[in-house]
Amino acid sequence: MIEKEIRNSLSDSEGIISEMCSHILNAGGKRIRPLLVLYSGLIFSEPTREIMLAAAAAELIHMASLVHDDVIDGSPMRRNKPSINKAWGNHYAVLCGDYLFSKAFCILSGNRLMKSLDLMVEAIRSMCHGKILQAEDKFKQDIGIDAYYERIAKKTAVFIKCCCKSGAAAGGAGDEQVQILGEYGLNLGLAFQMIDDILDFCGDSGVMGKPKGEDLSQGILTLPVILLLESKNYGSWLKDIISRRDFSSKIMNEIVSVMQRTGIISKSFSIAVSHIEKAKYFLSLLPCSRHVDFLHEMADMLQARTN
Amino acid sequence: MIEKEIRNSLSDSEGIISEMCSHILNAGGKRIRPLLVLYSGLIFSEPTREIMLAAAAAELIHMASLVHDDVIDGSPMRRNKPSINKAWGNHYAVLCGDYLFSKAFCILSGNRLMKSLDLMVEAIRSMCHGKILQAEDKFKQDIGIDAYYERIAKKTAVFIKCCCKSGAAAGGAGDEQVQILGEYGLNLGLAFQMIDDILDFCGDSGVMGKPKGEDLSQGILTLPVILLLESKNYGSWLKDIISRRDFSSKIMNEIVSVMQRTGIISKSFSIAVSHIEKAKYFLSLLPCSRHVDFLHEMADMLQARTN
Repeated sequence: MIEKEIRNSLSDSEGIISEMCSHILNAGGKRIRPLLVLYSGLIFSEPTREIMLAAAAAELIHMASLVHDDVIDGSPMRRNKPSINKAWGNHYAVLCGDYLFSKAFCILSGNRLMKSLDLMVEAIRSMCHGKILQAEDKFKQDIGIDAYYERIAKKTAVFIKCCCKSGAAAGGAGDEQVQILGEYGLNLGLAFQMIDDILDFCGDSGVMGKPKGEDLSQGILTLPVILLLESKNYGSWLKDIISRRDFSSKIMNEIVSVMQRTGIISKSFSIAVSHIEKAKYFLSLLPCSRHVDFLHEMADMLQARTN
Repeated sequence: MIEKEIRNSLSDSEGIISEMCSHILNAGGKRIRPLLVLYSGLIFSEPTREIMLAAAAAELIHMASLVHDDVIDGSPMRRNKPSINKAWGNHYAVLCGDYLFSKAFCILSGNRLMKSLDLMVEAIRSMCHGKILQAEDKFKQDIGIDAYYERIAKKTAVFIKCCCKSGAAAGGAGDEQVQILGEYGLNLGLAFQMIDDILDFCGDSGVMGKPKGEDLSQGILTLPVILLLESKNYGSWLKDIISRRDFSSKIMNEIVSVMQRTGIISKSFSIAVSHIEKAKYFLSLLPCSRHVDFLHEMADMLQARTN
């Protein structure tokens, strides 16, 4: 039903926009955000059209932000297919992202989903700030864990929080319950990004489709790096590498091996897991139901993911 | 008051986003769109905060679309200052545009200006389609006048229409009056773009800040070109030039001189003026007031502009 709403909302697009939209729709994706909207709504309501629309809008915003991300990073691939910028050029990709954003707002505004609308506006604003923070902080070695939290919250977790709140609101939840779903989403989102950042170092680079330590080599210092920079034995060693931008695959393998030997990877992972548990704690404040169970499983799946 | 609302809405921006916003705010601009929102609203109402907010949102959307336009076209300058992409790079410029869009929606959604929200969504969607049409139609010699109308309506005139309707709606106008302001805006917008397209050939290139016939040399075929392509004596001559992409300044001067001699420029101008007159006709359907007079003068100013 959500997929139908997404396709339906893009059905009045014309020419090249229509081709780009088909390309994106057919490239797949895990649809995590609409699922979170959906199940957050189903806790409080039958599957109404409002919930489906809120879910569709969240996925459209996610798609728009990925299209613009690929322009920003000059990425040639997305979901194992050529990115929009690669296939049609930056020109069309910028417009395609704008178009997808406007369609999301069209759904929410046209159907008077005011709460969801406010939340999606907040999500986009936050993502912009987060991505800018990420760019500003590149190669900054004194960034520290608080700035890391702020950055990943704004870049990733606030959107996921807003998805959960949007679904709950569309399902008619009260303010307090919307808040609880928001806390679940925020912690899920933090864990999601942390695990992503850990997998950058110790995921299977074949499965991940990118080389080990790619974030670091681009100057994006994430949780394991920040923890290693703070270590007594390896801090200045790593600082030196980063200063020299010396990211050969030999060095990168050494960094990963040090991260593993010193327990930095497991420490990072346990921080991520602490947020998974926090997320589950917030679910425990809600009455039991199979939709709450689903959100619980979502947290487990996220913890177990390897790519 | 509008300027204050714009600045106010951007005041929670941080770091580089805040710098980019200041740069844009201080670069000036004619503020045509917010003025149209304002006066369309004042016809029906005292100067309320709702009208100011609707006007501020329209300008933010205009700013966002200019920032993305400059990324799309790789333009180094905007309003005689370095463009955002030139000064900060495409990376930040894409995000800056997204941020400005989200702030506009934040204003409209946060203040429950639902009519204006719907209209601004329509405006963005239309602009995306129009810009894509423009890109698709590049160097297409058989484009014809209808396709030109469709393109400039979507690219420019629908946004201006939506501004007038947004102001009228925020001022509490009835449906029929909103519609009348919309027809005024649509025709004003068509004339605005046509005059822009004429000035590309016969404006003072020093004042315009760009070389003569720049649109044509980039493949954008506008009203005077389309009319000349249809002329018996010069059609095939111009076709040949376009096919060979032979846009030296000598050739461009020849084209302009032919356009003037054959009356193509005055014919183009009289088509633009017919839309100015149509716009004024729609104003005549409204009760007299100094705010209607202002919109009348706006149309006259537009007709008389030379840059």
